[in-house]
Amino acid sequence: MIISEATTLLARTPDALGALLPGLPDEWLHRDDGEGTWSAYAIAGHLLHGDATNWLPRIRLIVEHGTGRPFAPFNRVAMLDWEREPVTALLDRFRVARAGSLRELASLGLTQDDLTRSGTHPEFGTVTLEQVLAAWVAHDLTHLAQIGEVLAGRYRDEVGPYRRYMPALERTAPAE
Amino acid sequence: MIISEATTLLARTPDALGALLPGLPDEWLHRDDGEGTWSAYAIAGHLLHGDATNWLPRIRLIVEHGTGRPFAPFNRVAMLDWEREPVTALLDRFRVARAGSLRELASLGLTQDDLTRSGTHPEFGTVTLEQVLAAWVAHDLTHLAQIGEVLAGRYRDEVGPYRRYMPALERTAPAE
Repeated sequence: MIISEATTLLARTPDALGALLPGLPDEWLHRDDGEGTWSAYAIAGHLLHGDATNWLPRIRLIVEHGTGRPFAPFNRVAMLDWEREPVTALLDRFRVARAGSLRELASLGLTQDDLTRSGTHPEFGTVTLEQVLAAWVAHDLTHLAQIGEVLAGRYRDEVGPYRRYMPALERTAPAE
Repeated sequence: MIISEATTLLARTPDALGALLPGLPDEWLHRDDGEGTWSAYAIAGHLLHGDATNWLPRIRLIVEHGTGRPFAPFNRVAMLDWEREPVTALLDRFRVARAGSLRELASLGLTQDDLTRSGTHPEFGTVTLEQVLAAWVAHDLTHLAQIGEVLAGRYRDEVGPYRRYMPALERTAPAE
């Protein structure tokens, strides 16, 4: 992994969500596929919460304490308890949080050699800084995919026979 | 389905791709998951080709000829034969094509009643205008999801143990 390529991707996610979500009707933004699945809005909140409490804080912990201090567990569903706000406000907060994360990441001055440094994940045990950074990027992208799928699900019935060529419509965006 | 909600979504796709793809390294943009799968770049081309030859032309055919003249088959893989161009150029073409599609759609002055009008799909037989329009939207969104997944796949190995919480990494973006 090349660090700058990872951050290039991470910097884009707020813009991608900002192009897609603001102005969509609530029936789209807040639709989910039932128990244990998330709406596009919830997924955006999950990404925001990840920036606030998960990814950069864990990288910082690796740099400062190595494996000596385990990561705090990440609450994957914290955003479901938040008061609902306009999606533009949520995305503004995500944009600010992400910019802050990337600024702080840059300030750590990581080199390629640092990617092999390790920390202690509360469930996985020892993980490398590279794994955390790669997971951060992949997490953005798989959740962007999840947003596409849960939005597409709104027309699951309306597409009629086209459904047979849209296997993604059969998936129900598991909360992961 | 409310027609204006469908077009609201369709108008956003070029911006969403424009936020995500330009400037990514080729190893990201052109990666696929092997035989029968598409890269993010190929998917963008597929969307462009759909606007040029599939969605709006079929809607126009329904309006002008009803079921009397079957839709021309859609070549789902046409873009794989195109000469490679910078992704910004491809996305510019998509943006122009999409804007043209939406302009022409608006010029048809469709009402909600028109959604029940029918055409003849070369494989499915009779389809309604609503089904074509819904499929156009869902097609954008499922392919946006597919782009997220094929990009995420670049770090499939690098994420290490995080992979177990990213089921999307197990999928290999089927060409559909």
